Order: sequence, then C-alpha cells, then structure tokens
Amino acid sequence: MPTHVSVLDTTLRDGAQREGISFSVKDKLRIALKLDELGVAYIEGGYPGSNPKDAEFFDRVRTLALQHAKIAAFGNTRRAGIAVSQDANIQALIAAGTPVVVIVGKSSRMHVTEVLRTTLEENLAMIRESVAYLKDHGLEVLFDAEHFFDGYKLDADYAFETARVAVEAGADCVVLCDTNGGSLPFEVSQIVADVRRALPGVTLGIHAHDDAGVAVANTLMAVQAGATHVQGTMNGYGERCGNADLCTVIPNLQLKMGYRALANGDLTILTDASRFISEIANLRPDDHAPYVGHSAFAHKAGLHVSAMLKNKGSYQHIDPALVGNDMRVLISELSGRSNIAHKLRELHLQVELNADEIQALSERVKELESQGFQYEGAEGSFELLIRRSRPDYVPPFEMLDFLVLVEKRSDKDILAEATVKARVNGVIMHTAAEGDGPVHALDRAMRKALLPFYPQLEPVHLTDYKVRIIDPQSATAALTRVLIDASDGVRSWTTVGCSVNIIEASFQALLDSLELPLLGRAPSQ
Amino acid sequence: MPTHVSVLDTTLRDGAQREGISFSVKDKLRIALKLDELGVAYIEGGYPGSNPKDAEFFDRVRTLALQHAKIAAFGNTRRAGIAVSQDANIQALIAAGTPVVVIVGKSSRMHVTEVLRTTLEENLAMIRESVAYLKDHGLEVLFDAEHFFDGYKLDADYAFETARVAVEAGADCVVLCDTNGGSLPFEVSQIVADVRRALPGVTLGIHAHDDAGVAVANTLMAVQAGATHVQGTMNGYGERCGNADLCTVIPNLQLKMGYRALANGDLTILTDASRFISEIANLRPDDHAPYVGHSAFAHKAGLHVSAMLKNKGSYQHIDPALVGNDMRVLISELSGRSNIAHKLRELHLQVELNADEIQALSERVKELESQGFQYEGAEGSFELLIRRSRPDYVPPFEMLDFLVLVEKRSDKDILAEATVKARVNGVIMHTAAEGDGPVHALDRAMRKALLPFYPQLEPVHLTDYKVRIIDPQSATAALTRVLIDASDGVRSWTTVGCSVNIIEASFQALLDSLELPLLGRAPSQ
Repeated sequence: MPTHVSVLDTTLRDGAQREGISFSVKDKLRIALKLDELGVAYIEGGYPGSNPKDAEFFDRVRTLALQHAKIAAFGNTRRAGIAVSQDANIQALIAAGTPVVVIVGKSSRMHVTEVLRTTLEENLAMIRESVAYLKDHGLEVLFDAEHFFDGYKLDADYAFETARVAVEAGADCVVLCDTNGGSLPFEVSQIVADVRRALPGVTLGIHAHDDAGVAVANTLMAVQAGATHVQGTMNGYGERCGNADLCTVIPNLQLKMGYRALANGDLTILTDASRFISEIANLRPDDHAPYVGHSAFAHKAGLHVSAMLKNKGSYQHIDPALVGNDMRVLISELSGRSNIAHKLRELHLQVELNADEIQALSERVKELESQGFQYEGAEGSFELLIRRSRPDYVPPFEMLDFLVLVEKRSDKDILAEATVKARVNGVIMHTAAEGDGPVHALDRAMRKALLPFYPQLEPVHLTDYKVRIIDPQSATAALTRVLIDASDGVRSWTTVGCSVNIIEASFQALLDSLELPLLGRAPSQ
Repeated sequence: MPTHVSVLDTTLRDGAQREGISFSVKDKLRIALKLDELGVAYIEGGYPGSNPKDAEFFDRVRTLALQHAKIAAFGNTRRAGIAVSQDANIQALIAAGTPVVVIVGKSSRMHVTEVLRTTLEENLAMIRESVAYLKDHGLEVLFDAEHFFDGYKLDADYAFETARVAVEAGADCVVLCDTNGGSLPFEVSQIVADVRRALPGVTLGIHAHDDAGVAVANTLMAVQAGATHVQGTMNGYGERCGNADLCTVIPNLQLKMGYRALANGDLTILTDASRFISEIANLRPDDHAPYVGHSAFAHKAGLHVSAMLKNKGSYQHIDPALVGNDMRVLISELSGRSNIAHKLRELHLQVELNADEIQALSERVKELESQGFQYEGAEGSFELLIRRSRPDYVPPFEMLDFLVLVEKRSDKDILAEATVKARVNGVIMHTAAEGDGPVHALDRAMRKALLPFYPQLEPVHLTDYKVRIIDPQSATAALTRVLIDASDGVRSWTTVGCSVNIIEASFQALLDSLELPLLGRAPSQ
C-alpha cells in the first residue's frame, strides 16, 4: 500500500469559480506562498487560455522561492479539427512556463457528442495529441478526465479508452473527475477500483465536487481504492457547492488513514492557512468546518464539558493541537471560578488574579449574563471585562453622551445622524457624523472623537454586525444582544452589547471594539 | 433490500446545541409543523430531563394536528445505582407524554469506566432496565448507542452487548451513534455490516456527526450496509461541526439510492423547509449547501453555461426542481409567473390576477428581492404586495413622516422617542411616544395614530422581532433585514422590511404588521 499521496491544490483556479471570490495577482501570490509553506505537492495557478491576466501570475510566481510545491497551469485539450501546434490554448499553456500542466479532456461520450459535438474518435485524438505534444515540450502532464464517473456509468469502455489513450501518450497521472459532483462514495470506490485493475502501474488521481455533500468521502474512498493523487481546494471553495475541502481531506488522510499528504507531514499550520486564505478571499471563515473551524472543538453541553474534564478524548475525535486548532469551552456554559481561570489560560491573558479577584470576576460575569450579555464568541469584551476589573486599569477614553437621530420626511431621503461627547486624554471631544443607518453614524462619530489621539484606529474596521433578540416574547421591547466583529487587518476580535435599546447595545459593542485595540497604548496627543 | 428508510429529525434537540441557536417554544412548534409537512417519520423535540422549559413544548405540541411525524422525547438511561422508577430523568421522559422516546446509553467501555465511572455490568443493567421500563409504559423506544463506533474499535464484544441487551429489553430500534464524528465511511460500512449480521431482524439506525467532514457519507454507507433508520438535522445544525445534514441525506437516499425517506416521497418543499428553518434559527442560509443552497445550481463558468444550454444534465447532477430549488443562470426566465400563481394558491388568497398582472407582480418581486427583501418567511408582506398591486386597493392609512431619537446623557437613563405623521381617513395624525428602544417607541407612536380609527388594532401585538445582516462584509453599513411576527391572539402573521438603515427596515415591517389586519376594513371614524 502506498504511504504517500500527492496533493494538488486548485484554490487559485477551480476555487476562484466560487461566487464572491475575485483574487488579484497579489492575492494569488500570497496564497501560493502559504500553500507552499503548508507543503502541498502542486499548486494549480490558473487557466492561461481562458484568463489572459493569469499570464502575470505565472510570470511573477517564478520569482518566488518555493520550497515544496510545483506550479501547474490548467487548460483544455486542443480544439476539434485543428492541429495541436495551432491551438492557442495549448500555446498559452506552454507560454505559462510552468514545470507541470493539467490538461482536461472529455471522458463521457455524451459530452463529446452533445456538448463538444465532435466524434468519439476525434476526442481520443485530441487527448492523445495534446498530451504527447506537451510531453514533447518536457512538461509533467496530469490528465484530468472530465465527467469520468458519469461517463463510466454511461459507457465504461469509452471512459476507459480516454484514460488509456492519455497514458499511452505519456500522461504522468490520470485524474478521475466527478465534475458534476453527483457520485456517491460506494460508486467512486467501485469505479476507481475497476480503473486501478485495468490500468496497473498508472498513477491515478481523484477530483471531486460536493454537489451530493460527499466530496471529502469520495476523495478518501478513491484513495482507499488505489488513487495516490488528490485534487481539492482550501476551505472547499469552488463553483456551486464547492470542491473537496483539502482542510478536511488532508488531516483525514494523515491522521486517520496513515498516508503522508504534505511535504513534511506537519499539519500544525493547517488552521492558520485555512483562515489566512479566507481572509484573502474576503469570505467569512466557516466556524463549523471540520478540523479548522472556530467551533470544531467547542463544547457547549454541560454533559460533554464535565466528561472532557475526566478524559480529553471522550468527546473529541483528535487532539486539536495536531491541526493547529484549540479546544474551546464556551464561556456561557462555564460557571464558577475554575472555569474563569481556565478561560484566562486559554486566552493567554497575562493577567494575574488572586482568588478573591477571580471570585469577584465570576460574580460579575454571572450578573452580566443574567442581564443578557453572553461571552460565548465575544472574547474581546470578555478580555476587557477582565482588564477593567483590575484596580490599575486606565481607560484610553471615556464616552460621556451620545444622541442618535433617524428622520424620514415624505419627500426626502432617510437621514441618520449621531453626536458623541467623549473625554480623551483630559480633552472633551464633541463630534457629529451622518451614516447609512444609526449604528454606522454612531461608529463614525466615535471614530471622529478618537482618531486625533489614536491614529492607530485608522485601519480598524467592522467586519460583521449581528443582532439577536433574546426574549422574543416581548418583541420590540425585548432584550437585544449585538455582536460586532472588528479587524485591523492582522488581528480580529469580537465584542458584545446588550440592552432593551438596540442603539445602546450597539454603542456598547462599538465602544469595546474601539477600546480593545488601544489596551496599554497612551494617546498620541 | 428495504425500500423505506425512516428519518428522525433532531434539529430541535441536537441541532439546538449549535452555537448561536436559541429556539423559543413558539419557534420549536413552527419548526415541528414544517418538519411534519416535509414528511419525516419522527421529530425529536427535546430533552425533558435536562431542560425543564421543554415541558412546555411537549404540552403544546400535542395540540398540533400532525399528519406524518411522531414526536419523540430524548433522555439518558437511568443513573447508576438507583432504581429506574426513582430516576427523575426517566420520569421526565414519561411525563413528556410522547408516543416515542429516544434513550441514550453508553456503548464504549472507556466511557462507562472513565466518564460514567461505573461497572460494565451496571451499564448493561441501566440499558436493560430503562428500555424495559419505558416499553412497559407502552412507548416506542429507540435506543441511541452512544460512541458505538469508537466503542466497537476498542472492544467490539462489549459494544455488541449493549445493543443486544437493548434489543432483548424490547427496543424497537438500535441507533449506532458516531458521537465524536471521527469515523470514516469505510469503517462505518464495515461495522454496520458486522452488526447487521450479528443482530438479524433488528431495525438498525445511524446517527452521524460531521467532525471528519463525512457525516452524510457515513449515513449513506450505513444504509447501504443495512440500516433503515437515519438521524440528522436540517441544514446539518449541531454542536461543533454539526450533525448529518438531512437536506443532503434525504435527496441522496431518494433520488440516487432508490429509498423512500419521506412520507409521500415528495422532495419539492425541501429547499423551502431548509430556508424556513434557517430563518427561524436566525442563521444565514449556507448558499453553497448541496441541493438546497442558493448557489447549488448556479453556474458561473462560461463553459458550463454554454454546455447547459446544449444539455441540461451536462453540468448538474439532478434536476433542481426535484428539491424545489432553481438553476440560477436562467432564473430570470424560470422564476416568475408560474411561481407567483403557485404562491397565490399556497396562501389561499382569494385574488384573481390576469396574466399581465401576474407578470407585473413577478417583476416587482424580483426587484424587491434584489434589494434584499425576502418573502420566504414573511407571507404577511407578500400578501400585502399582492393586494397593493390591485388597482382598486385602498390603503387603510398612509404613513407620511417619522423621526426617531435615542439620547444618552451621562447622568440620565437612556431615552428613546419617536414621532409619526400619518394620514388616516383624510385626517392628519401627528403623534409621539417613548419606548424601551427606538423600534418600540416607533411602534407605540404608530398605534397612537391608528387606534382612534381602528380600535380592532388594540389586541394586535408583536410577538417576535428578528434582525439579519445580509451583506456582512460592510458591517454597520450593510443591508439589514427585519422580520416581525405579530398576532391578534387568534391569527398571526410575519412581515419583512429591508434597508441599510435598521430603523427604516423596522418601520417597513411594522407598517405591514399593522396594515395587514386592516385589509378590507373601513375606519370606524
């Protein structure tokens, strides 16, 4: 049984098909560096024949000193009815100057006759000649057999034949693609095993999509049936329901199936890499993602927490440190002093509290929670709560007053305006601002008061705003909890506010989101 | 081979463990009705022994006229060392008054000795006596074998024995649970097949968690190996990485594996049910979810789109209409008129619209949806939209202006005040009110303007208020959608508003919530 599986990451090509993703060349270069650090074998960087701006990426990526990964360019087999040397797409692939190319050809007779509208024979010639031509140019060639599984179910002989022809022409690997993502694990297992028997000695790969929710499982089943090359994307990004998520596939292969999938076998930067790439993609990380999600090792049920204290393996399937993640005990389920102490350690807060102080803090948390505050997920406000409990704490500013006004007159646009009075470094700042809505106006007025003293707040921006009604029975007079996520581009933090008045709750969360990044900083004026 | 698989939905119990979910009793009742409409066999409603407020749910759910689903209560086997008749949790299960109970017991020797800290024999007695006692009370009993797969790998004989004892005591089904979610599909397949052989004739179930990203696959593999009962949650909600997602499991079973999993086999409300439940949970729907995601059948790549035009099956694995979803590229041509007509029938609205009116309404809905409105859970606003589209519609009032002010001065309590100018029956009403917060003040000022003319609004009150940020990237300047539930004590309705300004969005939803109950009523003065 092979002990090594080579990983091709196609976040920069197939992953970029996801709605909402639009990578710049610089984004792509930063991601390539991160993937190389992670230790994948191949980075599929783009589709030069379809996307002319990818040329710049391929030019610039050559200047990076990659340690582990080979860069691959992606393209189609030559078009029907022309010579391979005349095909612009094939020439663009060669011009990309990568050591590896991935060439995709059709393996389903339906796609050949109904989509390409050419003959079955011509499609085989397109595969054979394209692979041979690229091999003649000294390239490593991976053949992506598009729609292989659907094609196999339709006409197994023809699907085999496309793979066989690619191998004969010199392809280094035949990648069986479940392009529509509709195959189920037992089918993939069976079909890969059939191909394995029919093409002994050939390196087989798997490329799965998640339309039936089983892309990860299909990838694992293919490896179990003899594939030694896997393709996928970070965080499962991709068109429709996405591609096989390498952040799940890789730890499953390494920690559970005994394969080596990364250059040095080290998974401890996986969580960091996942979040880095979601930052670059400007997509919110999936908190519930296996292995790397913020909640992947979070425990809420009292039963589980008490069991975990007895045996760490009792309610978690792996040690989260192996993938660079942490076990998180949700604060709302913690009661009492030992849990506060645990949370202080977990947050790596350099705060020394004696037993009485911990007791007082625990009482304070209970009191605030009974008022509707909730620190599960709002570690920023929790940290401030601890800091403020210290007798020597000096707040970087004080917010004294605010006023928010929303006005709609029949013939005019709606207006939102806020005024704020703050004391900063002994100076009273009285500011006003408009905004798209009342919270936006308040945020802008608060920044206006603070920025002259704290220019370091300039890059701080709010990245999410969540509202929850806690006691919905009383509806508009109910308690409202607001959570705000903020980031300075490097670090990010979450803060909470709670009040029957949604503006006051937002004000509290905004205040914490602006105070936290100033901890320990003196005003500049 | 069995052709029927029974589905137990545990969204209300295991699903509610997900961070951020906090269902009210009313939420749970609405979800139960939707699950029954979908046609699941069992709805696990809560954990009466652990959560006293679930008692109210079990009381009230008996008054619903469910068509398909049986309600189940969940609890542990009796505690170690006491008589089953003395166990408060077992008594709470019986008191719940459901026809079905799910009783969870430990199948892993490690959990028995290290977490429960009792003997292996006592654990077997706990299972045997708890199941027998509940059977003696005339209940259908499903036995959840906790940590079965991990327990099996540790000590297969003991894991088997826990299942065997439950069967001997009369359990109607043994559910093999992958509690930590760390098992892989080929393991699950193997172990279920082993149990299938060892316990012929026993109904086997599967309960999978997604910590290795393969909960759906594990569920399918278990069914393939002989399980005929599956447990999961809508949208895969659940602790950590979630439970097996029934929105993916059910269509895979029905459309690809040939089983019947829903009462009438009809999947066309699946997408609607998925989104309805995410609305109630106040969680953003996952656009990339298989089958039911907004992007599940969306096509971005030019290649795919042109192929789709040649052959619909070329780049999608199923016809999205089978699960009530749409292919997105053609949405402007596909949605629209037939859907509007369908919605009119669904709401039993006595409105006759001709083809041109339906066309105009369809255009209007599309325009409003592109602005962020969403009518899925807001039938009240949808009905108003239709009514208002009629040329003979006479609004019962017009809201002309409003002003909302929130003020906090350091030494005083926070103040929220609203003024409203409305035209009712030709009279200009200019009113003001204070409230706990800005929306409460606005609600009170609007009522003040209307009550002199419409005393029938007196019993109308708001029962829930939900806020959702639609485009979180821009945080406090993002689009805000507000949903309001209102009731007059007999009927209840939901309305929607959407704006970058949360006050304006609330105003729109409030306006609809007050206009709807006045349809067709003349003012009394």
